[in-house]
Amino acid sequence: MTSQLPVDATTDDPDVLAAYRTDRAAFCPSGTPRALVRARSLDDVVETLRWANENNVPVVPQGARTGLSGGANALDGCVLLNVEKLDQILEIDVEEQIAVVQPGVINGTLAAAVAEKGLYYPPDPGSKDISSIGGNVATNAGGMCCLKYGVTGDFVRALQVVLADGRVMRTGRRTAKGVAGYDLTRLFVGSEGTLGVVTEVTVALRSAAARPLAAVAFFDTMSDACRAVADHLGAGFRPAALELMDAATIEAVGRMRDLGFPPGVGAVLIAQSDAGTRAPEELAAFEGSARRCSATEVIVSDDPAEADLLMQGRRLVGLALEQYPASLVDDICVPRRNLAVLVDGIERIAEEHGVTIATCGHAGDGNMHPAVLFDLAQADAAQRAFDEIMRLGLKLGGTITGEHGVGFLKRAWLARELDETALWSHHQIKQALDPRGILNPGRVINSTATGRGENDQRSF
Amino acid sequence: MTSQLPVDATTDDPDVLAAYRTDRAAFCPSGTPRALVRARSLDDVVETLRWANENNVPVVPQGARTGLSGGANALDGCVLLNVEKLDQILEIDVEEQIAVVQPGVINGTLAAAVAEKGLYYPPDPGSKDISSIGGNVATNAGGMCCLKYGVTGDFVRALQVVLADGRVMRTGRRTAKGVAGYDLTRLFVGSEGTLGVVTEVTVALRSAAARPLAAVAFFDTMSDACRAVADHLGAGFRPAALELMDAATIEAVGRMRDLGFPPGVGAVLIAQSDAGTRAPEELAAFEGSARRCSATEVIVSDDPAEADLLMQGRRLVGLALEQYPASLVDDICVPRRNLAVLVDGIERIAEEHGVTIATCGHAGDGNMHPAVLFDLAQADAAQRAFDEIMRLGLKLGGTITGEHGVGFLKRAWLARELDETALWSHHQIKQALDPRGILNPGRVINSTATGRGENDQRSF
Repeated sequence: MTSQLPVDATTDDPDVLAAYRTDRAAFCPSGTPRALVRARSLDDVVETLRWANENNVPVVPQGARTGLSGGANALDGCVLLNVEKLDQILEIDVEEQIAVVQPGVINGTLAAAVAEKGLYYPPDPGSKDISSIGGNVATNAGGMCCLKYGVTGDFVRALQVVLADGRVMRTGRRTAKGVAGYDLTRLFVGSEGTLGVVTEVTVALRSAAARPLAAVAFFDTMSDACRAVADHLGAGFRPAALELMDAATIEAVGRMRDLGFPPGVGAVLIAQSDAGTRAPEELAAFEGSARRCSATEVIVSDDPAEADLLMQGRRLVGLALEQYPASLVDDICVPRRNLAVLVDGIERIAEEHGVTIATCGHAGDGNMHPAVLFDLAQADAAQRAFDEIMRLGLKLGGTITGEHGVGFLKRAWLARELDETALWSHHQIKQALDPRGILNPGRVINSTATGRGENDQRSF
Repeated sequence: MTSQLPVDATTDDPDVLAAYRTDRAAFCPSGTPRALVRARSLDDVVETLRWANENNVPVVPQGARTGLSGGANALDGCVLLNVEKLDQILEIDVEEQIAVVQPGVINGTLAAAVAEKGLYYPPDPGSKDISSIGGNVATNAGGMCCLKYGVTGDFVRALQVVLADGRVMRTGRRTAKGVAGYDLTRLFVGSEGTLGVVTEVTVALRSAAARPLAAVAFFDTMSDACRAVADHLGAGFRPAALELMDAATIEAVGRMRDLGFPPGVGAVLIAQSDAGTRAPEELAAFEGSARRCSATEVIVSDDPAEADLLMQGRRLVGLALEQYPASLVDDICVPRRNLAVLVDGIERIAEEHGVTIATCGHAGDGNMHPAVLFDLAQADAAQRAFDEIMRLGLKLGGTITGEHGVGFLKRAWLARELDETALWSHHQIKQALDPRGILNPGRVINSTATGRGENDQRSF
């Protein structure tokens, strides 16, 4: 069957296929692919899509497969079109402050390469050391720095995209501004491989910021920490990061590394400032906010190395939660004033469903990642808790996903967030650009086309 | 005929219709509308579109009609759907730093209203005192502040949109982040009334910045000024504005107001800093750059009132050019390193075509507004010069429009900037969301649908 696919970089070795069947989303179904194409050129992508479109074969685009929503999981009979080997940084233009990269470049690799030239690529998802720019673009990934700098989409100037039928298109431009035509770039950013396959990304860069300093504040309750967030931001500050962790998260991370936090802490808030000479002033203001909101202790560091260590602790959360038998990581984002209500509600949901929920997240943006931790015997309760968190997020005026994407995991919920006409628009756009519905069918929206063989039931 | 339109706020008074036939673009054809609806409610918009869609009548959405590309000009037999009376600021949420406004709110009115609450709405097109938020959204308007803060689209969180068939849709969200579904908000931003009519806009705000200080540098040549731009930005600075004016522009403005500039100046560069305590440092660095690039004089002011006056001078350019019998204002944006080449090329184009071109613009973004100034007898030469500037912009890796939009004026040029597949995508999206092609047909893209009666020839 595979021999039909006119692309050299194709394999149908069952062991290899098995290894590429899933991303990092827990409990999302994955089907049995017919083939894997590890594209090594634009032509490989073009030929794969052209063939698949002609033959009505579903294609699942993949990058580093670090996604958390099942958007890169295999569908029965699909071609997995993996672009991780398209991993060249094609250009870093210091004067224009842009870089042109292939989709398989790892986020952290790009960030390091531009840093060597005195530049800064701000988007820094928690997965930055393992996730690729293509995937960051596909999900419009966020990170710690969004509060001050914005999300991935804010740094994408132009794309090269291969459409479902294999035609190649350029969107956007290299210039700082430009309004010629519809903003196709932003339409493709966050479209999770359902509208086209991104084969080249032009990103905007900034001048290197000062090495960040950090402060850490400890609280008895999450509620106090949330008040401190509101107090600090309400005073007009825009720190480079403002990260919140609850007791369960601190405990999980603490098992991997001694963070030197005092015992019995209910919540910790980490603020980072890269404002250079003004950083001490910003962090002093943060300390004031924290103390006004009943912080039990605040430590302001004047050593960038300490700030690194603190943020490394925060970045360990994902790994730390893997110690648990099973977890479902949520990603709601609410208006900041509702952060405390959200956090209270999450604690109530945990109690009601008899599961542990470890909550951390980008407090400055109102974007929280409550992780439902459970034994497999609790799977149904865990799923209900996971859903309940999204329901609460929507009720508080928020969204079901701040930065992880819809993928398979949350597509039933998309219809609760969007109104009927917005959903109709999604279907119309999908149909317009991928008339045969071969591109990642059934992800983000329930496409009416080929998504055959997909198990719509959640399979624990 | 109009009696069919089931909306009270309708007129077919020929004098009124005549007054609403055009925006501020020079030399764009405008047809004879059948009716004008001055919508006073969402229902007026819904009913107008529903009726027009059922009856296959073209609809031209209008706001303050300050656009510069003919996108709001009447088409023969169209309904002009004007939303300038939908002019309420519905909400300013200080804690969340967002505002919800109707499309007819004037940009400057919103900026002033949020400033009273200690907040800042950065997008500041040159037209800010007369242009409305709806139009700013429709064109993704820029301004002076884009270099530091971004364009209109960067501040739009959510929209209420009425689709061609009268259905109402919400896009986006109030939260700082969110990736649930396609980015319909950004698709509608900059779509110039061809995909839907925006009836509500939720914008992000920022904490008030410090009152800006400014410096002004004088040069013998535009080329020196361009080098100073590169020097200053290359050092990692990101001023709140970096505006360039050539001798012809200075002369035109000087006839309206004495700017106190030395005589015989070839180019002036104005830098603005709102960095508060760091503003003097930024402006001193700007002075250094200017002097390294042969500035004949540099004045650094420590008085915000003087900065205001300088920027007011810059903002007078539009009015100043109206002194000339006729003008065609271009809007190319090029990679910054090509700014000097662009400026040289524009001077050459002026000579070759025997017209005057006054050039000013947002030098920090590479976004220039060369205005071809001419007597009506020179109309053909002026048009050729205008086109030649766009050709040069594209050749230098730029775009035909940085912030004014395509409208009617530049739609033939869109096909030169975009590749065939990108153009196809535009048509597919247009067809998907407006199947009968009633919304602003023939603007941005040559729609295949109802654009009947439009004169495709430029009419001088």
